[in-house]
Amino acid sequence: MTNIVRPSILPGFMELLPEDQILFDRMKEIVEEKFQKFAFLPIETPVIEKSEILFAKGGGETQKQIYKIESKSTDMSMRFDLTVPLARYVAQYFSQLQFPFRRYQIGKVYRGERNQRGRFREFYQADIDIIGHERLSLYNDAEIPAVIYEVFQALNFTDMTFHVNNRKLMNGYFASLGVEDTVGTLRSIDKLAKIGVDQVKEELFEIGLSPEDADRIINFISFEGSNEEKLQMLQALEVLNPIFIEGREELVEVYGLMKDFGVPESNILIDLSITRGLDYYTGTVFETFLDGYESIGSVCSGGRYDDLAGNYTKQKLPGIGLSIGLTRLFYQLKEADLIRFEAKPAIEALIIPMKGCEDYGIQVLQKLRAQGKRVQIYLEGGKMKKMFAYADKLAIPKVIIAGESERDKGAVSVRDMKTGDQVEILVDDLI
Amino acid sequence: MTNIVRPSILPGFMELLPEDQILFDRMKEIVEEKFQKFAFLPIETPVIEKSEILFAKGGGETQKQIYKIESKSTDMSMRFDLTVPLARYVAQYFSQLQFPFRRYQIGKVYRGERNQRGRFREFYQADIDIIGHERLSLYNDAEIPAVIYEVFQALNFTDMTFHVNNRKLMNGYFASLGVEDTVGTLRSIDKLAKIGVDQVKEELFEIGLSPEDADRIINFISFEGSNEEKLQMLQALEVLNPIFIEGREELVEVYGLMKDFGVPESNILIDLSITRGLDYYTGTVFETFLDGYESIGSVCSGGRYDDLAGNYTKQKLPGIGLSIGLTRLFYQLKEADLIRFEAKPAIEALIIPMKGCEDYGIQVLQKLRAQGKRVQIYLEGGKMKKMFAYADKLAIPKVIIAGESERDKGAVSVRDMKTGDQVEILVDDLI
Repeated sequence: MTNIVRPSILPGFMELLPEDQILFDRMKEIVEEKFQKFAFLPIETPVIEKSEILFAKGGGETQKQIYKIESKSTDMSMRFDLTVPLARYVAQYFSQLQFPFRRYQIGKVYRGERNQRGRFREFYQADIDIIGHERLSLYNDAEIPAVIYEVFQALNFTDMTFHVNNRKLMNGYFASLGVEDTVGTLRSIDKLAKIGVDQVKEELFEIGLSPEDADRIINFISFEGSNEEKLQMLQALEVLNPIFIEGREELVEVYGLMKDFGVPESNILIDLSITRGLDYYTGTVFETFLDGYESIGSVCSGGRYDDLAGNYTKQKLPGIGLSIGLTRLFYQLKEADLIRFEAKPAIEALIIPMKGCEDYGIQVLQKLRAQGKRVQIYLEGGKMKKMFAYADKLAIPKVIIAGESERDKGAVSVRDMKTGDQVEILVDDLI
Repeated sequence: MTNIVRPSILPGFMELLPEDQILFDRMKEIVEEKFQKFAFLPIETPVIEKSEILFAKGGGETQKQIYKIESKSTDMSMRFDLTVPLARYVAQYFSQLQFPFRRYQIGKVYRGERNQRGRFREFYQADIDIIGHERLSLYNDAEIPAVIYEVFQALNFTDMTFHVNNRKLMNGYFASLGVEDTVGTLRSIDKLAKIGVDQVKEELFEIGLSPEDADRIINFISFEGSNEEKLQMLQALEVLNPIFIEGREELVEVYGLMKDFGVPESNILIDLSITRGLDYYTGTVFETFLDGYESIGSVCSGGRYDDLAGNYTKQKLPGIGLSIGLTRLFYQLKEADLIRFEAKPAIEALIIPMKGCEDYGIQVLQKLRAQGKRVQIYLEGGKMKKMFAYADKLAIPKVIIAGESERDKGAVSVRDMKTGDQVEILVDDLI
């Protein structure tokens, strides 16, 4: 007697039944098609990397969440994002790549997150990045959200808003106020939506800002108005800090160019409270929200960085990138009953041969497969009712019955599983 | 100053430049398309599973090769194949699945193999299995190789041979000779191609076979002749062991049915020396060789098993499956210069706007993208020569030049990068 182990998976890992897997795969396929359409090239890095590569930047929060592989000889770990592997890849193959290097990667990453509903320890990221050598024009900052706009359009979300800001603008503004801890200030602001104005202020005091500066900053990031009014406000502030001015000019330019690349004006929101937590970003930053479903959080975030791979190469590699968390997105769309895209039926028809007509059924099968149709034949015998139930549960739209009477005429009976209509068709006339 | 870590990956992990990644992805896509065409449904199991699940069967050789995750609280490891996760999946969701359950999974698996050229520690497996509840007809044994035949046809390998055998036939034959260690005997025979007749005999002596029995077995498995002659020989042996007879009947039937499902007779070889090493298989077994490239080894192997998930459920789940090792296959086809399939150009055209015509270039880009074309625009400035070299190195077939003179006419100049021909075309006439 074998000892039976209860079949189960680890918490925090998403696993789907085939009908949902087909939907997830369709979503992934749409994303990939659009990435390809926008001329991004695929790469696929290993799931396991040397720990020295993954932690070249130094540990921090991420290192605590890492999945390390047990090994006496090699210190290796599972990747926690696709950006660090990209940096390593670009540095490693620098001389064989063409710049600007436009790459996409859709792959699973691993984080030992706290166990919580909707938080995943294994999840797909779908990343695009454009990496320049020495320099990279601002056009790229505007093109990247256009890709995402088309991705979400294809997923039938036309109502979405890109929240755009610029880190230089923020840092320059803080500097103009004499604020020293700009990173801390950005981190606190980043929490505005989560913790509210009072809490943010509290945090700003804690890192040494005066009540006046904290107020100024809160007013600055909360300024209400149209995009044009915000840009006018930024002009009217008359801040002379050159970083501020550079950031403002970039924001104006990216805002204009996004429209040229096809993102409608109504889908863009200049949002001075968007900062992105990571210290990594240096210019344009983006977050993306589905209108009416802002509570889901940003479905796609990213931005501009000055130096992708400084830990692995002396080459200066500025870039801009965005990332969609596909697993989380799918989970949330599903939970909110928001899956608006469809997948083709996995199986287009099920052939049910009557007893003694198996050979004939296989002939019909071969004929349909030769035409590229996705067809299955049921050859396990049993009752008709059982076979129809099988087709029904697998959502197969057509059942093709191959019985003796049909065979004698070189025909089959085709039943539409939705309407229940059944017609006899000559095999030669089957499309 | 940042400390620079030399960018590198672990040995035994395949990583490709984009041009090869595109080819690999195309191969994976072809395989997936064919799996779908034959009505297999996708599943995707986690890369990490509970160790108790992965080792339910008991350790052995595999356990030594496993990648375990460091954890104080949970014993978890990376999957080493897709069959154990399938067994767990089918047992876990048994009541929600329809049987026969036809599933495919294409995913990475992990084995701490000895470091050796062409051996991978992370590699893709592409698996199909058909799982029955209680029983599964022999038709399935014949349909499975038909899928593989179509996969390799699509990869432009029409010359391939399915080596077919049946475990019952072998076990029944051994039993008829009074051989006790049938598993050991099968394992030794499995090494025939690798170690040769003399070594196999040696091994058979070691596990207790008499010289006469060893000779009989060697003669049996080395019998030369056509498939029909082999089947006649099996008949003529007049072995009365019922398992032998059952196996012979199954082999005859599967051989006949394979042809019905579209595998040409000339691509099938009844091969009594094919046993598959694993004790797992209980009936039909397959190996697949590319004609003229047999040294590559079997490119796709599998077979029939009586009990998929006995470690996780009391349900009896017989099945048949095949697996292609995609990473190894790609590596070997590449090494042998045997890649015969093509991928579409990743980028169909590169738009090069002249200085001051960037806006016009973006308009042309938008027009082409609206038609679904995979187009890129080069907006980094610099010399024409550099931009053409960029298109050339990325193997982009067309360059579209958008200069002032073209803009004034609402046209562009299109250069064919292969022929060097350049023509002016009105933007409205661009397809």
